[in-house]
Amino acid sequence: MGLNVTQKLIKNHLVSGDMTPGSEIGLKIDQTLTQDATGTMVMLELEAMGLKRAKTDVSVQYVDHNLIQLDSKNPDDHIFLRSAAQRFGLWYSQPGNGVSHPVHMQYFGKPGKTLLGSDSHTCASGSLGMLAIGAGGLEVAMAIAGEPYYVRMPEVWGIRLTGKLSDWVSAKDVILEMLRRYGVRGGFGRIIEYYGPGLECLSAMDRHVIANMGAELGATTTVFPSDGEVRNFLKGEGREEDWVEIKADDDATYDLEGEIDLSSLEPLIAKPSSPGNVVPVKEIEGEPIYQAYIGSSANPGYRDFAIAAKMVEGRRIADGVSFDINPTSRDLLEDLTKEGLLFHLIKAGGRIHQAGCNGCIGMGQAPATGRNSLRTTPRNFPGRSGTREDSVYLCSPETATASALNGRITDPRELDMAYPEIELPEREKNMSMFLAPLPEEEAEKVELIKGPNIATIPAMEELPDHMEIEVLLKVGDNISTDEILAGGGKVLPFRSNLPEISKFAFEIIDDTYYTRAIDARDRGGSAIVGGSNYGQGSSREHAALAPRYLGLRVVIVKDFARIHWQNLVNFGVLPLTFKNPDDYRQLDRGDVIVLSNLRETIQKRHELTVRVRGTDKEIPVRHDLSPRQVDVLLKGGLINWVNR
Amino acid sequence: MGLNVTQKLIKNHLVSGDMTPGSEIGLKIDQTLTQDATGTMVMLELEAMGLKRAKTDVSVQYVDHNLIQLDSKNPDDHIFLRSAAQRFGLWYSQPGNGVSHPVHMQYFGKPGKTLLGSDSHTCASGSLGMLAIGAGGLEVAMAIAGEPYYVRMPEVWGIRLTGKLSDWVSAKDVILEMLRRYGVRGGFGRIIEYYGPGLECLSAMDRHVIANMGAELGATTTVFPSDGEVRNFLKGEGREEDWVEIKADDDATYDLEGEIDLSSLEPLIAKPSSPGNVVPVKEIEGEPIYQAYIGSSANPGYRDFAIAAKMVEGRRIADGVSFDINPTSRDLLEDLTKEGLLFHLIKAGGRIHQAGCNGCIGMGQAPATGRNSLRTTPRNFPGRSGTREDSVYLCSPETATASALNGRITDPRELDMAYPEIELPEREKNMSMFLAPLPEEEAEKVELIKGPNIATIPAMEELPDHMEIEVLLKVGDNISTDEILAGGGKVLPFRSNLPEISKFAFEIIDDTYYTRAIDARDRGGSAIVGGSNYGQGSSREHAALAPRYLGLRVVIVKDFARIHWQNLVNFGVLPLTFKNPDDYRQLDRGDVIVLSNLRETIQKRHELTVRVRGTDKEIPVRHDLSPRQVDVLLKGGLINWVNR
Repeated sequence: MGLNVTQKLIKNHLVSGDMTPGSEIGLKIDQTLTQDATGTMVMLELEAMGLKRAKTDVSVQYVDHNLIQLDSKNPDDHIFLRSAAQRFGLWYSQPGNGVSHPVHMQYFGKPGKTLLGSDSHTCASGSLGMLAIGAGGLEVAMAIAGEPYYVRMPEVWGIRLTGKLSDWVSAKDVILEMLRRYGVRGGFGRIIEYYGPGLECLSAMDRHVIANMGAELGATTTVFPSDGEVRNFLKGEGREEDWVEIKADDDATYDLEGEIDLSSLEPLIAKPSSPGNVVPVKEIEGEPIYQAYIGSSANPGYRDFAIAAKMVEGRRIADGVSFDINPTSRDLLEDLTKEGLLFHLIKAGGRIHQAGCNGCIGMGQAPATGRNSLRTTPRNFPGRSGTREDSVYLCSPETATASALNGRITDPRELDMAYPEIELPEREKNMSMFLAPLPEEEAEKVELIKGPNIATIPAMEELPDHMEIEVLLKVGDNISTDEILAGGGKVLPFRSNLPEISKFAFEIIDDTYYTRAIDARDRGGSAIVGGSNYGQGSSREHAALAPRYLGLRVVIVKDFARIHWQNLVNFGVLPLTFKNPDDYRQLDRGDVIVLSNLRETIQKRHELTVRVRGTDKEIPVRHDLSPRQVDVLLKGGLINWVNR
Repeated sequence: MGLNVTQKLIKNHLVSGDMTPGSEIGLKIDQTLTQDATGTMVMLELEAMGLKRAKTDVSVQYVDHNLIQLDSKNPDDHIFLRSAAQRFGLWYSQPGNGVSHPVHMQYFGKPGKTLLGSDSHTCASGSLGMLAIGAGGLEVAMAIAGEPYYVRMPEVWGIRLTGKLSDWVSAKDVILEMLRRYGVRGGFGRIIEYYGPGLECLSAMDRHVIANMGAELGATTTVFPSDGEVRNFLKGEGREEDWVEIKADDDATYDLEGEIDLSSLEPLIAKPSSPGNVVPVKEIEGEPIYQAYIGSSANPGYRDFAIAAKMVEGRRIADGVSFDINPTSRDLLEDLTKEGLLFHLIKAGGRIHQAGCNGCIGMGQAPATGRNSLRTTPRNFPGRSGTREDSVYLCSPETATASALNGRITDPRELDMAYPEIELPEREKNMSMFLAPLPEEEAEKVELIKGPNIATIPAMEELPDHMEIEVLLKVGDNISTDEILAGGGKVLPFRSNLPEISKFAFEIIDDTYYTRAIDARDRGGSAIVGGSNYGQGSSREHAALAPRYLGLRVVIVKDFARIHWQNLVNFGVLPLTFKNPDDYRQLDRGDVIVLSNLRETIQKRHELTVRVRGTDKEIPVRHDLSPRQVDVLLKGGLINWVNR
């Protein structure tokens, strides 16, 4: 039987397990990507493992998140990451070089390879026919050390694209349509594979837009074939020799099927405060806006900025609108400047920011209280912008720019303007903001440079056999890792300092959590109860590590988002799901749950019972851990597991 | 007898007092400037005064300091300032339009006019033959309301410039030479007036560089004549009609005289951590650097950026150096882009930041712990960069860029390069990021929009007649307002919220101050003892207001910096100086000082006695308050004084 692209990529990298959806497989990892928000912890983990040198083909440490240097913490971390990259034989991408995902695609992405990244949008490189997966930092550390990456074999979800995008409709609208149809849980346990004649109108960078936000569907990753468009892209980057064709076999099948007629799409927008809250722009036209924001890995390409520049050429942004331009890379800024496009953006009243993730991760450009912000970024979870009472919409550059010109939400088709044509400029390869890996003998002599804010990870004990612990929080559906542990300029500078960053855990949801958790920790720990899609969003392992540090031992929810589920296991927190989702109602904040004979039970079976102290409630729950994961949990997490 | 330029400007605006150095004069104020860090308080003060409409010719509210929006506080304040500007009939310069000083000079500066600004670098507009003075916010509020500005008539210090600057030596080196010779207290009680044939080689924007950093000499302000260079500048701005010639009379004299032969100057640099710590660059050549920083109101002009761009054209910044480019205005960024200069900066590895004050006020770009940062900014007080253990040097763009290229401190004359020639581009006037004042009938209908972080100023009681208060801190010489109350991204967002911002008072010097002060406040308040030049630096009135809020009643020092001294009076804190500076040794932290019959004493005489409880020490001190200021103090500050 023929194979689809996903199956080919997995088959070529399979080191354990079999390719039956749902069973755990081990994959050889060719490339890794770490960014600075998650990377300092990864580097500390590599140090703890005593790694001599990276065993991957290519591993790159980017600095793109923590660029706002309000004190020495961020720049000290940059220097630490640089020293660690040199010590362990990684590439180092300096601050100012740009956002990891498009930069990695441009300089290192190779069809047919696997990429594991400690960033949930790592999947963006699926645009090149790679198997690119976001994971917790510790798993990326393992991959750098040459260990396989373990994941449940996903179902492959074939989405056939037909037709052609209309003027004023672009790749962002394709992924917003997916989110409109299937919601933020729609891709769970799946890899989305796009194919069909509609691909012809999507450049590799357009596909990046779509692959990137596959993360918002909860998908394990997204895969595109490696076709002529990919070849063109690599040629433009001076790397045509890295191209190989990868297409689904003619008789390939998919576990699930879907179809989008691109011709039928119109401009779409995700309303506050979920990427799944998608409606046609014209449904909410006329709402006044405070901000229009261009940039991020969800619309990172030259085209995405050029279209905005051409739309505002000779015009003025509406009075009172902050038109924030966030170049995704040094290269892009160079190209926009050379082609005269930056000039139009400045002249029209744009605020030009440094190249990086910036406001997408809450690092600046927070909107005013309750005012509408239209962004081309991938996420609008509550508070992610930095503003507690925020009102963030997600849309294409066309929609954001049209709205900036009018001062209110505007379907770009309403503008009295021809759809601008964009030609990609000649690219000049400029690797001057990268540092290449040092030769092995030099690398061994490099000392890690640790600033005063960089603290080692405390030791963690094994999983107890008996627990009686209080439910400290009961939360609803779709709780994101931004709510569990915020990003942004206030919190992320502490990413290398667990005791300090833990003070922000669940702060957005309940600012008494920290003190209550510290208190409960002395009584044996605590539990959390949640709804569906618990832990969606960012891959940051701090969202598991910080609550664990505060004594979290068990999370019981309706279902989990993939990366966070893995991160909980990696740090020794038992992730359980209700056997009957309705039992969610049976547990409340303040309940003390009792788990007995736990160590033997989770080894022998997937089902267990939670009792509630002082009541006769017995609630059936289950875990979905592989035997390897059970072993990791028993030992108190992956660090203990590796060290023993 | 003939008059110098300063005397002419003062004479034309004198509303009370006589022009004898040392006596208080009242001046009519034509223009005001407020920025966002100080301006929210000014707007709240205007509201408290019940002002109907600004009575100045021109008043402009800029937003240039608090551009890093990590949460809703800064953007909420921007919206508040906009509403207040519209309510009170001010111009509003939107975030992204640029730094107040060069922008004001370009769009509003007029020879012969007075300008009062709630920013210590307001003096920069002295470059145009204006009398431009930095003051506390409350005094600017008074000026907006049409009240005179009161100041001691300064001595006029004539500095005759001869000769011509050599290649690689520029305006920054002139002001650094002044600081090398005379130190950070050298200008106290003086206005510096430059004249002589050397002026011919200094453009108006070069003069801005020199006038701006007159603040670092402690001068009341700096004045240049309005000559042909000023005419050229205004012509370039499309405002030649605003030019009038203002020159010293042929028989004019100065209270003090000095001379600089420009031909004799070489590249200079101020070492950490004082602008007065100046040495020739070649004396410290070779030190490795972490950062080179271009921008700020101390080197704001097109020339200052163009020279950096031409120096790096076709070259690469040294590995590991962060080359931070901070355009001072939207206009400048437009011009640099249009002329292809931004391209060179990007290509060479520069990190381009948004237009504004940025790292100069600790708003981003903090250096790593203990690493050397070379900056074209005006100040390197300890911790002002945001990094507690910082190592900041001040120099010209030439020196900063040469050092960035080499990775170590470099005299630019050592580069193998011809000195680039810079031609100013044709300027296009673009006022699109300004909002003009509303017509009066519309303005009256505008409501102030106050975000949740904007708190009114608490009421303050009168000066007690008897005080027994503890000395909470004893500090040394040259304590800056950055040390009293830091700027930067952590602190400034609370500028509209006194109870919150007060938590940061003296934090850099002693992080127990806040709790000890709160404690002492319940016992009648507290005192501070200091050395010479106490309160140098920024004009921010929060540095008086926050300690006052925490119970500070008396400051006894060797001598004060001008603006902070006025701010203390304005907020009801009694500023005293030791009659014998050696008595500084007699007072220690923990001493309880006793002041009796205070209200009558300060009205009747300038000398009084401080006793120390439990000892027989009697320390003679004095105040230098005018009768008006004594009255202000007795009433508990200027707000009470105005309201009664």
